[in-house]
Amino acid sequence: MQPRVQLITLGVPDLDAARHFYVDGLRWPVIFEVPGEIVFLQVGHGLALGLWDADKLAADAGDQAPTAVGTGAPAPLSLAQIVASEAEVVEALDRAVAAGGTLLKPGQHADFGGFHGYVADPAGFRWEIAHNPGWHEADDGTVSISPIG
Amino acid sequence: MQPRVQLITLGVPDLDAARHFYVDGLRWPVIFEVPGEIVFLQVGHGLALGLWDADKLAADAGDQAPTAVGTGAPAPLSLAQIVASEAEVVEALDRAVAAGGTLLKPGQHADFGGFHGYVADPAGFRWEIAHNPGWHEADDGTVSISPIG
Repeated sequence: MQPRVQLITLGVPDLDAARHFYVDGLRWPVIFEVPGEIVFLQVGHGLALGLWDADKLAADAGDQAPTAVGTGAPAPLSLAQIVASEAEVVEALDRAVAAGGTLLKPGQHADFGGFHGYVADPAGFRWEIAHNPGWHEADDGTVSISPIG
Repeated sequence: MQPRVQLITLGVPDLDAARHFYVDGLRWPVIFEVPGEIVFLQVGHGLALGLWDADKLAADAGDQAPTAVGTGAPAPLSLAQIVASEAEVVEALDRAVAAGGTLLKPGQHADFGGFHGYVADPAGFRWEIAHNPGWHEADDGTVSISPIG
């Protein structure tokens, strides 16, 4: 598991309110969105901020399987690392578990069309490790996302 | 408030456990640390991950003043934006409030020696806006942090 964050996904109770704040209010640039579902904003070199329904994020991360880590419910967000292959997803999850993380969702095909899994750090913060052929980072750090699958 | 994240601070219940996972386990590079207090890791181009005691983060962000936003307690983390001056801290906070954010802590001198404030987005996620003369980003995105004050 490499020291890299490419996506910060915030689980929000009201996607319209979040979009109104970041996009209409602050005028932050949208990389890609599925209306009513998810919004991605560029927030740094090779770094995106995702806004997603909190319940959908929790379900995607496998919260139906209670975890022993943390002091309460997991924080409604995930930090994500994008890797180059399905094998690297599995390797990164294995390394995180070996380091003391808790596997929340083993590597598997994802609803977005790629391959991913989730692991929690000792405090319960979720990391998603994903292979997404639709995720591109230009040399200047600009992220673009294409629908796949 | 510009579309930029330079620091993700995770509020953790056990700093030693978090450090053991990220530094000893995953061998992620430490930028700067105050033993027993806070650890910063490089996790992207111009991007740092901070590990800090959750109660100290909450106090720093002004959680003694209850907020009306969100559906419960704020997530134990903050996303931070580093700006070039104290005036820019105030401007960025003002713009976030104008966009619908909730001011948690007005711009003021910070314990780390710089100047900062906090604002919450509509879902309750905290943003810290900080001016920190000790924060440096090299052309290749490498972050270094020097104690100030």
